[in-house]
Amino acid sequence: MKRMNKVLILGAGRSSSALINYLLREGEVHNWTIAVADRDISAASSAVGESVTGMALELDINDPVERRKTIGSADIVVSLLPAFFHNIVASDCLELNKHLITASYVSSEMHDLAEKARSKGLVFMGEMGLDPGIDHMSAMEKIDEIKESGGTIHSFRSYTGGLVAPESDDNPWHYKFTWNPRNVVLAGMGTAQYLKEGRYKYIPYHRLFSRKKEVEIQGLGKYEMYPNRDSLLYRYAYKIEDIPTIVRGTLRHLGFCEAWDVFVKLGLTDDSYPIVNSEHLTYKELVESYLREEDQENSLFDRIASFTGLHPDSDALKKIEWTGLFSNEKIDLPNATPAQILEKLLLEKWKLQPHDKDMIIMQHEFVYTLNGKKEELVSTMTLKGENANNTAMSKLVGLPVAIFVSLMLKGVDFRTDETRPVIREVYQPVLRELEKHGVVFQEKIRELV
Amino acid sequence: MKRMNKVLILGAGRSSSALINYLLREGEVHNWTIAVADRDISAASSAVGESVTGMALELDINDPVERRKTIGSADIVVSLLPAFFHNIVASDCLELNKHLITASYVSSEMHDLAEKARSKGLVFMGEMGLDPGIDHMSAMEKIDEIKESGGTIHSFRSYTGGLVAPESDDNPWHYKFTWNPRNVVLAGMGTAQYLKEGRYKYIPYHRLFSRKKEVEIQGLGKYEMYPNRDSLLYRYAYKIEDIPTIVRGTLRHLGFCEAWDVFVKLGLTDDSYPIVNSEHLTYKELVESYLREEDQENSLFDRIASFTGLHPDSDALKKIEWTGLFSNEKIDLPNATPAQILEKLLLEKWKLQPHDKDMIIMQHEFVYTLNGKKEELVSTMTLKGENANNTAMSKLVGLPVAIFVSLMLKGVDFRTDETRPVIREVYQPVLRELEKHGVVFQEKIRELV
Repeated sequence: MKRMNKVLILGAGRSSSALINYLLREGEVHNWTIAVADRDISAASSAVGESVTGMALELDINDPVERRKTIGSADIVVSLLPAFFHNIVASDCLELNKHLITASYVSSEMHDLAEKARSKGLVFMGEMGLDPGIDHMSAMEKIDEIKESGGTIHSFRSYTGGLVAPESDDNPWHYKFTWNPRNVVLAGMGTAQYLKEGRYKYIPYHRLFSRKKEVEIQGLGKYEMYPNRDSLLYRYAYKIEDIPTIVRGTLRHLGFCEAWDVFVKLGLTDDSYPIVNSEHLTYKELVESYLREEDQENSLFDRIASFTGLHPDSDALKKIEWTGLFSNEKIDLPNATPAQILEKLLLEKWKLQPHDKDMIIMQHEFVYTLNGKKEELVSTMTLKGENANNTAMSKLVGLPVAIFVSLMLKGVDFRTDETRPVIREVYQPVLRELEKHGVVFQEKIRELV
Repeated sequence: MKRMNKVLILGAGRSSSALINYLLREGEVHNWTIAVADRDISAASSAVGESVTGMALELDINDPVERRKTIGSADIVVSLLPAFFHNIVASDCLELNKHLITASYVSSEMHDLAEKARSKGLVFMGEMGLDPGIDHMSAMEKIDEIKESGGTIHSFRSYTGGLVAPESDDNPWHYKFTWNPRNVVLAGMGTAQYLKEGRYKYIPYHRLFSRKKEVEIQGLGKYEMYPNRDSLLYRYAYKIEDIPTIVRGTLRHLGFCEAWDVFVKLGLTDDSYPIVNSEHLTYKELVESYLREEDQENSLFDRIASFTGLHPDSDALKKIEWTGLFSNEKIDLPNATPAQILEKLLLEKWKLQPHDKDMIIMQHEFVYTLNGKKEELVSTMTLKGENANNTAMSKLVGLPVAIFVSLMLKGVDFRTDETRPVIREVYQPVLRELEKHGVVFQEKIRELV
């Protein structure tokens, strides 16, 4: 691979700071050029700051001439753009012979483009963030270890949560937005699919949050977990095709799911149709429109209690009331879907305040037989952010990409058949460097009888 | 409009017989040519029978040369093809200057094509069947009457059901398939939207069947009704934009919805993902995969009772058990979605036997003020089929199209700005001719106090 020294980062949004700062620091040592392009030049400038190795560019990604010119001047392109832009960026990279790294899920279109890129000797690596990203890398390291010691894996469970740190936890939901609020509102939509002791399990979205489970997180106590949509897929990505149990899930504080389930059951997370006259309605009127019209003499609170079967004094109903959903406040958002309205309602309530710290939890649980003994390995990583600007989320999403790019620039040849970081040549150097930044998994092994 | 005498009917499926027979009879009197084209020439031949005015054609609709040649030789084209073929047929008709009539919903693409057709002096008329079709025509006649007498309409409710006739009703669901089984399984998917006393109401699919209402059908007694997805839309189509209450719904026998709700709640009507290894599973195993894995010691029946909250002796659970859903029978359908599996299960159970009669019910309920008095007008049509081949469904879907085409051939100029039969020039002659075939609405007016 030819020696490279020019990186182009597309997108300078809030979650890009850890990534950009890492590359700027390394870039100063190694004489790289770190170009940051954004539609908003001031976002790019502020991301680059005073760094001599950084360069802020204004770029409208929809302008094909400018886009190709900018991509053409780099060696490696990092796309932090919304996922639907990845395909056009990837097409340009393919045509202009540029490597491409993203932290997003690899779509089937991206998978096909990566295959073509491979035949030209290019590296197209996706899912190089936190989840997806660090989850793959840390799980694969353990899976490979167990397999190479001659072990047989019976069960793999993996949970990740982007939460608020206990010291900043001051609302009844014990939750704040630490990433894209829209994705939080739409989370879990679809049908969750996983495997339990050789049996396929399906949970439709309307029952997902009532099917949550309690899990014990090492060193932190009990949380609750609901299964992600896509667990089955990872049997192939992780080369554990015959495993009888595999579940990947999302972690929330105890009590979150029961309350969120009220939004789901009402229909307020639906993003598929606009509410008529949404700008003129109050939140209370919106909720009314989802209830039977008969018993209007009762208070909305009581009607929701009866609709959900929850006790009027329940924590779940208190959480809902706290959001302001039963208030006479105007929605003031024209032509909005229920999901957009819910996002607006929660945006202020769940906002990370300047000094708030977020907290990421990731835990893998393996059950396997090794040397005739059945064992359980629990591997747990937790990391807190510093404040609302330097979140654990932006660090854990951005650092793996930054480290991977940095290693490429230092000459490591990452050409592989994989488009996810699931092979040792990729995960090992990235995980070792992440450890230097506090991303450490605590492990505990116990024998099962 | 130039005198025409050649009709082309695309598609000779089971539901086309009433339409084709009407046109063949009229064609013999008036010397028209009625060409019936189908991929399966024997279906077309059998539809045409011995008629001297009929002509059976073999046509692969995906072959553009053959398709254009066939369309080019007609004056009027009737498409009974699956809805996704309508656009290519409509494009050809537009290019070749042919009129086009369908019984299907007018998509927005079709709406645009109809506008272009209009400017060329062509008639593109859709929604000319039963529902949509007769529902529009019969409702519009009453709406226009009330408005023209100076009345103000406060409320419009309209219910249609394709059911089994009492004398052929011999299963616990009191239901059999009288039209496309796939559409029955997927019915209601989306969010039902309607207006009740000036308030917009929304019901998400997962709650639709538990929100059914009892309605009284004139002369028949109580049925249950769940709202259709699209009631709001018809305020504009029917020119009653300011009406405070509008609901269109589907009729079922009492008890149907509570039982169907079990399928919906489980997730068995989902058509969006395939069940892994579906060909090797039994129906019982499929149901297990949607339930919590914990309480496997209980019978599946008891677990479903506990999951649904239904009493083990309830009629709803008896209906479910009757379908065979809890049986050890193999599904034997590879790579099938839950909805496809459910359709397969019900196909035999809900099959119309050769001598079974179906029954269509349509009822409109208007509340209006006229001359200072508040009145309710209930207008009801019921029609039974003769047997499984000559169903009321195929008659009521096919006759309006046949009558409309026949009137065009007789020289009636139906050029209009509408693509649905909502204006008097269209609905009046069609409804009068339908009456001669037993399609009669019984009306009752009572004063409200």
